[in-house]
Amino acid sequence: MSILDKINSSDDVKKLNADELRPLCDELRSFIIESVSHTGGHLSSNLGAVELTVALHRVYDTAYDRIVFDVGHQSYSHKIITGRREAFSTLRQHGGLSGFPKPYEKEDDAFIAGHASNSVSVALGMARARTLAGQDYDVAAIIGDGALTGGLAYEGLSDAAASGEPMVIILNDNNMSINENVGGMAKLLQDMRVKPGYISFKRWYREVFSTLPVLYRFNHRIKEWLKSRLLPGNTFGEMGLYYLGPVDGHDVNKLETVLRWAKDMREPVLLHVVTTKGKGCAYAEERPDMYHGVGKFDPQTGQLEKSGDSFSSRFGESLCEFAEQNKMIAAITAAMAGGTGLDGFAKRFPERFFDTGIAEGHATAMAAGMAKQGAVPVFAVYSSFLQRGYDMLIHDVALQKLHVVFAVDRAGLVGSDGETHHGVFDVNYLCSVPGMSILCPASFSELHDMLRYAIEEINGPAAVRYPRGGEGEYTSSSLAAEQIIRTGSDLTLVCYGTMVNQALSAAALLEKQGISAEIVKLGIIRPNSFELTLDSLKKTGCLLMAEEVCAPGSVGEQLAAAAAESRIVLKGIKLLNLGDGIVTHGSVQELLRDYGLDGEGIARSAMEICSDNGKTQ
Amino acid sequence: MSILDKINSSDDVKKLNADELRPLCDELRSFIIESVSHTGGHLSSNLGAVELTVALHRVYDTAYDRIVFDVGHQSYSHKIITGRREAFSTLRQHGGLSGFPKPYEKEDDAFIAGHASNSVSVALGMARARTLAGQDYDVAAIIGDGALTGGLAYEGLSDAAASGEPMVIILNDNNMSINENVGGMAKLLQDMRVKPGYISFKRWYREVFSTLPVLYRFNHRIKEWLKSRLLPGNTFGEMGLYYLGPVDGHDVNKLETVLRWAKDMREPVLLHVVTTKGKGCAYAEERPDMYHGVGKFDPQTGQLEKSGDSFSSRFGESLCEFAEQNKMIAAITAAMAGGTGLDGFAKRFPERFFDTGIAEGHATAMAAGMAKQGAVPVFAVYSSFLQRGYDMLIHDVALQKLHVVFAVDRAGLVGSDGETHHGVFDVNYLCSVPGMSILCPASFSELHDMLRYAIEEINGPAAVRYPRGGEGEYTSSSLAAEQIIRTGSDLTLVCYGTMVNQALSAAALLEKQGISAEIVKLGIIRPNSFELTLDSLKKTGCLLMAEEVCAPGSVGEQLAAAAAESRIVLKGIKLLNLGDGIVTHGSVQELLRDYGLDGEGIARSAMEICSDNGKTQ
Repeated sequence: MSILDKINSSDDVKKLNADELRPLCDELRSFIIESVSHTGGHLSSNLGAVELTVALHRVYDTAYDRIVFDVGHQSYSHKIITGRREAFSTLRQHGGLSGFPKPYEKEDDAFIAGHASNSVSVALGMARARTLAGQDYDVAAIIGDGALTGGLAYEGLSDAAASGEPMVIILNDNNMSINENVGGMAKLLQDMRVKPGYISFKRWYREVFSTLPVLYRFNHRIKEWLKSRLLPGNTFGEMGLYYLGPVDGHDVNKLETVLRWAKDMREPVLLHVVTTKGKGCAYAEERPDMYHGVGKFDPQTGQLEKSGDSFSSRFGESLCEFAEQNKMIAAITAAMAGGTGLDGFAKRFPERFFDTGIAEGHATAMAAGMAKQGAVPVFAVYSSFLQRGYDMLIHDVALQKLHVVFAVDRAGLVGSDGETHHGVFDVNYLCSVPGMSILCPASFSELHDMLRYAIEEINGPAAVRYPRGGEGEYTSSSLAAEQIIRTGSDLTLVCYGTMVNQALSAAALLEKQGISAEIVKLGIIRPNSFELTLDSLKKTGCLLMAEEVCAPGSVGEQLAAAAAESRIVLKGIKLLNLGDGIVTHGSVQELLRDYGLDGEGIARSAMEICSDNGKTQ
Repeated sequence: MSILDKINSSDDVKKLNADELRPLCDELRSFIIESVSHTGGHLSSNLGAVELTVALHRVYDTAYDRIVFDVGHQSYSHKIITGRREAFSTLRQHGGLSGFPKPYEKEDDAFIAGHASNSVSVALGMARARTLAGQDYDVAAIIGDGALTGGLAYEGLSDAAASGEPMVIILNDNNMSINENVGGMAKLLQDMRVKPGYISFKRWYREVFSTLPVLYRFNHRIKEWLKSRLLPGNTFGEMGLYYLGPVDGHDVNKLETVLRWAKDMREPVLLHVVTTKGKGCAYAEERPDMYHGVGKFDPQTGQLEKSGDSFSSRFGESLCEFAEQNKMIAAITAAMAGGTGLDGFAKRFPERFFDTGIAEGHATAMAAGMAKQGAVPVFAVYSSFLQRGYDMLIHDVALQKLHVVFAVDRAGLVGSDGETHHGVFDVNYLCSVPGMSILCPASFSELHDMLRYAIEEINGPAAVRYPRGGEGEYTSSSLAAEQIIRTGSDLTLVCYGTMVNQALSAAALLEKQGISAEIVKLGIIRPNSFELTLDSLKKTGCLLMAEEVCAPGSVGEQLAAAAAESRIVLKGIKLLNLGDGIVTHGSVQELLRDYGLDGEGIARSAMEICSDNGKTQ
């Protein structure tokens, strides 16, 4: 029986002898590689965090103490340790384990995670609630150096430092977020890493003073003077955090010791842990970015299953083509060069490629500055991450009607990453941005043409939104705001983007039932007078909307309002969408089915509408 | 003739002798005090920035170079210098000068400002666009130490440091944002300020090396070693910015010299300038927070015109009342304790009052952490600033249905602060947050009751939104989601919040014209089935919506859609709102009139609807 087989909670980890920890880490690593090779998931970051996670479970009780992961895709060891080993084969599957911490899954997951840089803020809030309630649980945040490039982390660190709240902020520093780290903070961490560790001195210093509690408190000034003279200065220390580190993040016994020290400090501590992404797995260590988020692969060789063309890769290619012609085009990413398909652009036009780190707000405001001075910035960003730039969209870009192009990737359902990553709010929030044009390509060629149109023809802010993955059977291209791609007489089925594929499939099913659906495809959802759509509604009297976004502010709601304002009497209406926008993980196809947005579901709704009108049954 | 009378551009400032600068600063200061005492506006920050502004105009050509103000309420001297002295009596008035930089007003205003911490990002974007285009203008950002508490500033500094772009970031450090500064960065600046200035050494060091260009480049490592040994270390330097300072911000001649050095460095420089808010005006220097944003006052004594009760002050009082009963209630502000009415709470419950600095994202995520652990956080924040927390509203608060209460102040039109400050997007963005309840008190007593309801009765996120200023004639209170406050038969007039006053006034006007308006007041706009409203619409057949928000996602749009979905045939419909949401400055009453949202305007629209239906004329 392996050690891992005995582990079903924090407590079980605590029962092990110190010399069983190293083998446990090795077993965890093998288990993760084997399991993820079947399910797909995040590999490199989880392999890097094995020892740190085991050490955490030696020191903390995760069911009682509050351990806040940042981003959270490094939480696999934590999930395996806390009783989810057997369920691990269902990782990221519909109805299975989430790939991110979820309090609804297990109390050991203290908080949701997914968007970077929030962990310090959240942990500080928990620490403050603890103090208010007079409770005694411990709080820790685990934040990667990549997440540290986000301003939110800095806001949290700054407040935590001033708060005096006992809490441990663990900086998991692998000098690599998803792509390589950029910016000033990365440089700073680099400098720190080459300095010798002063932990033993710090420990001694602390012990000497803590055995003399009166002196300790009384001699605060002497302490500060000593610290400034004897300890290596750094930003965290200067902010008021007690800095410990750097520590080898793969020495599990040392980590346990240092974590205990940090916890016992009873003040805000920053513990700097240095880890290697992909640790213990040759191919992942060598190419941690390639094995960041993966599909199935061969666990021996690391051979990945081939993935086909995607909207992201086609976007990157198209942008290179246009940049060749127009020297003022610049590409911006917030630490997602690979994911957004910009790696080719980065190689070809390094002087026009800007990676801001995980800083969508800054990227948006920076793009606004560029546009104000005549450059043509194209910011490629995931829909759900652009939420971080909402204020800058309005304040910095839109108020001055600046021509910034947003390539909004991962719009709509993203599949296995789940709640935190679906791009289901952007239609709402982009529509509220004054003067924003919103283009929704339904195919690769339409992406190419719409991107060109957004760059060359539109003045003011423009968003081109497209989904994760590839195109469907629909491969045509048009720049029309509205287009009737199938004529019919019984109802008007309205859609945009790749939903056109489901709409066409629904129409085919309906035809067999004797129902004639007219399909209006919206290429541009704003600005759009919906003239053609309203004409179609006048004709059919029935509106069926199908879209992969939350209900509030959806295009369906806009169309219903437009119909009312045009005093069109609808005898049938159904707005298919994702409700409040909280959608679990699973394949996109499964999720579409859940919401009646696959071809069959749409056809079913159409039949209901028509049946209400006496057309069928 | 005074010196100021001769100044109409940057060029005019450059023509002065060095010994004329001090008198010019004195004249500017007197002019600002006198002028603002009549118009109201921002006083303390402008008095603190006089010398810095004059020095900027000695060194830069603001019509060609790009000087980016942060927040921008410190730009009065700049406006006066650049040909807007005579128009200054119209400051913040409808049709007059804006109180913030506006490129549409003058090319010398490089970029819009209003929301803090964006200047470094914007300036970096401009510097990059310059380099792409091969142009030669200079770029500078002026950021206060308060704005430096925002994570966006940190993201910008980090990217700027790594960029190598020649630009000067001027840190205008008065150790005080609107309220006193908080957090780790404030501590850091404090520490820096007591260190001796090393400017002359730096200057020498730089000169020696720059006269030996080959050696300079070759000896990069030696340079780094020298710097680390001889220059005082600090965070900015460690991030990779060339740090200059601290410099006395009221010595105009020294400032000019140092600014020239900074500009000539041809790399990203951080120039640390220490200023005093309210400088040269005894009462403003003593109480800079009180004279931050003021109405009319006596320029001799500083005596301010009394302001009456406001929603903000009533909010603060109510929260104290509830906090007395419930020990888990905590109040959070993002550097706006005074503006949001929380100063009383801060004094009474210091251990439950948290000022995060200008960090709305962190405040929201921190509140989420508190709520997760059973505290009841109430985050009081201006509507337009909460845009910064949009992602955290969804990701950190809503996905886990956490009970965080948002006291959304300055909702709707704010008047003289204009475009950047109107709270006209929140109905849209709050409606998209899953599970968010949105309460809209129309009177002080309703604010009290709704706040209690939000704190005690609602589970999940809740927003109570209320306007700047005080209540109108309507002083009743109800917790009803929908309420018919006036019955009528010709049309249904729907409103919420203090718009009820305009609606009642419109109904009175209409009655004289023989038109009978039914008024539905919405107390809670979400969740709301609109049952009563739809019943009223069935009866009257006409919808007239009046609201102070942007059109997309407005309640009017939602109602029109609900009518269509309920297959209610409307013979008349008009949705009154603020269009795209970009609204200029002026009094609220003037702005309401512009948009036909005052009593008369609403009555006019009602008559148009009824006239279309043959009711009148």
